Amino acid sequence: MPHISLPPDLPGIRGAMAFRPETARPLNALVEILLRGPNTLSRGERELIATYVSSRNSTEYCHNIHGAIAAAHLGGNEELVRQVKVDYMQAEISPKLKALLAIAGKVQQDGKLVTDADIDAARKEGATDLEIHDTVLIAAAFCMYNRYVDGLGTIQPADPAFYRDRGARVARDGYAAVSEEYLAAHAPATRSQ
Amino acid sequence: MPHISLPPDLPGIRGAMAFRPETARPLNALVEILLRGPNTLSRGERELIATYVSSRNSTEYCHNIHGAIAAAHLGGNEELVRQVKVDYMQAEISPKLKALLAIAGKVQQDGKLVTDADIDAARKEGATDLEIHDTVLIAAAFCMYNRYVDGLGTIQPADPAFYRDRGARVARDGYAAVSEEYLAAHAPATRSQ
Repeated sequence: MPHISLPPDLPGIRGAMAFRPETARPLNALVEILLRGPNTLSRGERELIATYVSSRNSTEYCHNIHGAIAAAHLGGNEELVRQVKVDYMQAEISPKLKALLAIAGKVQQDGKLVTDADIDAARKEGATDLEIHDTVLIAAAFCMYNRYVDGLGTIQPADPAFYRDRGARVARDGYAAVSEEYLAAHAPATRSQ
Repeated sequence: MPHISLPPDLPGIRGAMAFRPETARPLNALVEILLRGPNTLSRGERELIATYVSSRNSTEYCHNIHGAIAAAHLGGNEELVRQVKVDYMQAEISPKLKALLAIAGKVQQDGKLVTDADIDAARKEGATDLEIHDTVLIAAAFCMYNRYVDGLGTIQPADPAFYRDRGARVARDGYAAVSEEYLAAHAPATRSQ
């Protein structure tokens, strides 16, 4: 049961966003740029960073939906996504992405834990300043999205099929396009103050 | 020393935002709506929530600048801001704001810690669904801004006068207006990739 009156047909962050479209728009714009905008990190790699951070924050909705989006970008490789959540050092991903996940894992705890040695290790594997910046901001942003979804007690479905279907759509159409549908359907006029 | 090449004349989040204006715009739009947009919580109250969360995350730049902005909105009452950071239950703030700060403090740790009893306590003091929503999202958002500022190793000045001057300007002109100045001055063309 959500802590406030959220639309019952919209699980996870979608219910919260429909409740407050004014904040939903910058929240969607941010994730669209970070996870889908032009970047030398692939969409699959960036979704893996978001999935890993959400998994460490134990936010079911977020790590399942971003895991599904990551898998959709990675040719349906759900096993790789699972491996990144469980022990990314053993996963079949690039050494650069492993070094960036190490930074993301520290930011998930506290940004002050990131050391010069962590940054040097990522640079040695070819990470650019922009890739390091975006890794830090993706990890920080998912510490926000995760707390938003958990802190309002949103509905977080258990059915993997829900995430698989939705993830495939978001991977194809993007966050902004998919969210405009339900933002339009739930006008703020219906919000209880 | 920042972990990546940030403009040396811009401390805290401003250096990070100038480095990546594409993400700076939604980050600024979000804070502008949350802390300055139309709301039944005053700007001073919302800045106190942001200050409290940033203080708990020990992010010097954020708790000092938002503390200064809060003080500017609260008739220059720096002592009240200090008291909220140290022990808000003893501060001269409304019982409703105390109940909302309790929720914010739990979101700062983990959104799953927020209980029905926390929500009921806030409602009993008159908090609306929208005020509870915005408290959760302000707390979650500052877990992002704090990690962004700390995770990149940004410059965080120690001089209180720096924050007092800057805080007064942001309180008067707003986040979007003040940030457009340095975003315009630091075109992304100068960014090292």
